[in-house]
Amino acid sequence: MHNVELLAVARGEQPADLVLRNGRLVNVLSGDIEVTDVALYGGRIAGVGAGYAAIEEVDLQGAFIAPGLIDAHVHIESSLCLPAQFAAAVVPRGVTTVAADPHEIANVAGWGGGPRAAADPQKIASGAGVAGVRYMAECSRNLPLQVVLMAPSAVPATHMETSGAALSAEDLADLLEEGTVHGLAELMNFPGTVQGDPEVLAKIAAFSGRPRDGHAPALSGQLLNAYAAAGAGSDHECATVAEAAEKLARGFYVLIREATNARNLRPLLPLVNERNNRRICFCTDDRMPGDLLTQGSIDYIVREAISFGIEPVTAFRMATLNSAEWFGLHDRGAVAPGRRADLMVFEDLRAPSATHVYAGGRLWAEGGRLLNEKSLAQASVPAAVSSSVRVAWDGFDLRIPATGAHVRVIGSVENQVLTEERILKARIEDGQAVADPTRDILKMAVVDRHTASGSTGLGFIQGFGLRRGAIAGTIAHDHHNLIVIGVDDESMTTAARTVAEMGGGLAISDGSESLAALPLPVAGLMSDRPLGVIRSDYDALLDAAHEFGSTIYDPFMAMSFMALEVIPKLKLTDQGLVDVEAFSFVDLFIEE
Amino acid sequence: MHNVELLAVARGEQPADLVLRNGRLVNVLSGDIEVTDVALYGGRIAGVGAGYAAIEEVDLQGAFIAPGLIDAHVHIESSLCLPAQFAAAVVPRGVTTVAADPHEIANVAGWGGGPRAAADPQKIASGAGVAGVRYMAECSRNLPLQVVLMAPSAVPATHMETSGAALSAEDLADLLEEGTVHGLAELMNFPGTVQGDPEVLAKIAAFSGRPRDGHAPALSGQLLNAYAAAGAGSDHECATVAEAAEKLARGFYVLIREATNARNLRPLLPLVNERNNRRICFCTDDRMPGDLLTQGSIDYIVREAISFGIEPVTAFRMATLNSAEWFGLHDRGAVAPGRRADLMVFEDLRAPSATHVYAGGRLWAEGGRLLNEKSLAQASVPAAVSSSVRVAWDGFDLRIPATGAHVRVIGSVENQVLTEERILKARIEDGQAVADPTRDILKMAVVDRHTASGSTGLGFIQGFGLRRGAIAGTIAHDHHNLIVIGVDDESMTTAARTVAEMGGGLAISDGSESLAALPLPVAGLMSDRPLGVIRSDYDALLDAAHEFGSTIYDPFMAMSFMALEVIPKLKLTDQGLVDVEAFSFVDLFIEE
Repeated sequence: MHNVELLAVARGEQPADLVLRNGRLVNVLSGDIEVTDVALYGGRIAGVGAGYAAIEEVDLQGAFIAPGLIDAHVHIESSLCLPAQFAAAVVPRGVTTVAADPHEIANVAGWGGGPRAAADPQKIASGAGVAGVRYMAECSRNLPLQVVLMAPSAVPATHMETSGAALSAEDLADLLEEGTVHGLAELMNFPGTVQGDPEVLAKIAAFSGRPRDGHAPALSGQLLNAYAAAGAGSDHECATVAEAAEKLARGFYVLIREATNARNLRPLLPLVNERNNRRICFCTDDRMPGDLLTQGSIDYIVREAISFGIEPVTAFRMATLNSAEWFGLHDRGAVAPGRRADLMVFEDLRAPSATHVYAGGRLWAEGGRLLNEKSLAQASVPAAVSSSVRVAWDGFDLRIPATGAHVRVIGSVENQVLTEERILKARIEDGQAVADPTRDILKMAVVDRHTASGSTGLGFIQGFGLRRGAIAGTIAHDHHNLIVIGVDDESMTTAARTVAEMGGGLAISDGSESLAALPLPVAGLMSDRPLGVIRSDYDALLDAAHEFGSTIYDPFMAMSFMALEVIPKLKLTDQGLVDVEAFSFVDLFIEE
Repeated sequence: MHNVELLAVARGEQPADLVLRNGRLVNVLSGDIEVTDVALYGGRIAGVGAGYAAIEEVDLQGAFIAPGLIDAHVHIESSLCLPAQFAAAVVPRGVTTVAADPHEIANVAGWGGGPRAAADPQKIASGAGVAGVRYMAECSRNLPLQVVLMAPSAVPATHMETSGAALSAEDLADLLEEGTVHGLAELMNFPGTVQGDPEVLAKIAAFSGRPRDGHAPALSGQLLNAYAAAGAGSDHECATVAEAAEKLARGFYVLIREATNARNLRPLLPLVNERNNRRICFCTDDRMPGDLLTQGSIDYIVREAISFGIEPVTAFRMATLNSAEWFGLHDRGAVAPGRRADLMVFEDLRAPSATHVYAGGRLWAEGGRLLNEKSLAQASVPAAVSSSVRVAWDGFDLRIPATGAHVRVIGSVENQVLTEERILKARIEDGQAVADPTRDILKMAVVDRHTASGSTGLGFIQGFGLRRGAIAGTIAHDHHNLIVIGVDDESMTTAARTVAEMGGGLAISDGSESLAALPLPVAGLMSDRPLGVIRSDYDALLDAAHEFGSTIYDPFMAMSFMALEVIPKLKLTDQGLVDVEAFSFVDLFIEE
């Protein structure tokens, strides 16, 4: 019995696999820095303290040892890479566990692959969405990174879209039962939660006794009370200290998020004090390849927190023990006997940067680079995720016959996923409403790419700044249909076809010419290549878009939120223009 | 669906059952005192904050509201009363949850009742001990006190005793499976744990993912590492700051104990600081009726901690949230929406004493007195626990034929459960070794009361100070056989018979006369009467013992540890004199 040997090592009667000597242990349990040795055996911590013999010994010469960092909430898909490549990027930085919500792939990968004849959302059998979740679980096995999957709680987001999947409470319960997921991922349908929607409550009930993450931007007062009473236990959407303080006081763990597109760290750090930090964690939510590679992951947040003035041991606690406690992962989050030997070794307590990272007792990274990268076995890519783009090209038509003089234009605001509704005079040519780049009014299309139904939503958008060409992609939260924004129909069609031919991805085109493209063949969301390669392709896309006049830092990311019909005010899905506040479709043309 | 209504109340759309207005909330989540209202519905907190209407309203006029207190480790049996009477004693003080280890009754109540013909410990079928645990669960239903039962992990303590029960790993797993227990109670067999005893490891494994309490006095260094690695997660045996600090650093929750017979609070309070208090809790372990009635329970510890200088919110955290987190009882431990409405209302933050106590949303106590005491339904007492004293009186003989001039005498030391081995000259009369009160050498007997086997251990003890008479009882840790200490055989026999005739209890006698007695008919451990009555009887016993010359503050409690063969040095069981360090029987007489 393995445990018997671990105990013998702990007692000092049998040599450890490895002893790290002369370390300065960041003891998140006691709150102190402790000069000591750490003995590892069978992937776990056997003992802390002097007197351990081992097969291998490393003299740390006073370097610091912290528990492996935990990302309390992340969508790996947002990094555009598969779990193995994600691990290769974050493990060398000291991140050894992530609570991952495979929400994006779950929305896409429900069909089981193969073309489908007709689009009938009613036919999306309950349970169709589990393929994507199971695939992410499969991809996450045997990595140095522990990927703790949370069950996506809001698939699809609404019924005003053609979705690739639907996950019922029973489906989620099955995923829990089979051990694929650990808890319930962010309850994004917070209005439904608060109002006691039976299907949402059923999902919550299915995860009784399990961590159930919340997601409730700006929710406050009695509605926040209801959200807590319903069972949501955390929130990563806080934007202000006041909001976060209220949520803490009502029982939520506050997961401070520093994503690429939502940077809450600096605004929220003043919240942290000695009395409340035990219920505050760190998360990245969505980080683009560039940010992951340049800034980092949770390690970056820890450095920022320390540089802000948070006591280093406290910063590490928020990045380790607190998250472990929120998720009930009591086998990690601290360096103590019996826990997983996930360790981050570093030199500078004021700016921790991993020199060596141990995961499950094994040295997996050194000097910021993963060792044995080739040993990361990649799961095969099943049809459910490899053939996810199914567009009805017959009858594909982006023309908008003018039926009025004014149109509802989506007003995109930089660095916001909220949009405005702008009533503007349409530019009409030959009886068709067309883009007007002189007023930065571009045409936008959202095309069903799940069921090849031909369902296509058409409209106009302001704020992207393209003077020519078009951008397209299969990343369009949450349904991830094919989304296109451009100046003319030919460029838009080229970009859309380029994306589809790659099996999903991002592209930019000019007329009939494809200028740059990033293939994302896994569910149209992820690449199977290394993060550095993805980043290069991505940079080429951004360069081309900026060359064409876009003033947005990342127009592809901005585009990906323009079809998300749960965030106000005006959004476009493949089924039409949605007034989010009214929760209903509206006409493109204004009745006059 | 009940939850739907709770949410409607939380949203302010339906009146609450009760609103407590103008309270000062001890918010253990944020660490702050918050002036606010608290709305209750269906036994739970619906909302915190202004604006709630309710069927009933109470103006607290600035009184404090804290979460109901949690006792992190208690043996209810030590209070000599049943759970209902225990609840009547502690709920008015603000204690609304206890993690109870029914270890004492589990050791006794295994037979299922009725006399047994022969004593064959081998015949104690595995599982025989579950009757007592189930009975405690039955007794604990529908009380204002939430009794969270932990599975006794060391029944019997050793095989050098005749036990009333035996609990295997499978038995404990069954108790968990059926929902009778929540976790694994104190792993008292810490040597076996550390050494990897397969049966102990099997018990630990059966409670994977569950709280597993430790018990490891003075364990340190590598052996402590092994104890942690094995899975023990808490310890309530710390006696010094250094010991507690080491245990905290190795991952143990430290449960600071203030029992009647082990007062660790003042010595350990200097340990507490802002960095480490999150993993420190409070417990009472064993409190006699007098201490419960005079000092109190966890409320007493909170007051003592505050008077020592611990910040009040921190003291409450240790008495509420921390214990809830250790046990994974996330539905309590704080006043927040969705949690149990267990509340302690009090006036003075520097010396909190409950004026009103709500349990499960209902006002259960006011001014220190339980309301509706008669509503506490008492479970029927099954034969397994009501007929637990079975002594073979035929052949009952306390004489000790002298086979040498010197004897091993148990040296009792006041306020210690440890004893010494003292080699003393025997007083011999008519060929029999007898007590010698002039040297405070008394005779001691331990008689099998479980199987009526006649098994009787005889010896001598020093330190009790009786000049005449005898004391007897059926409380004798952990086997709880019939134990007698006295000056002469007649007094001893009278006391023993008095106890047996009551179906268990405590008694003091002089010659053929019984002077005072406390019946404990439930398993020979507990009374079914109120705590005040028990205390009166108990005081009469103590008075009589002191009148007879005993210099010990509580000779009955002291006696109860003299047969506990796992605590050094010399102890007596019904099977003979045990040298605990040698873990074997030794002869009473010294070979010369």
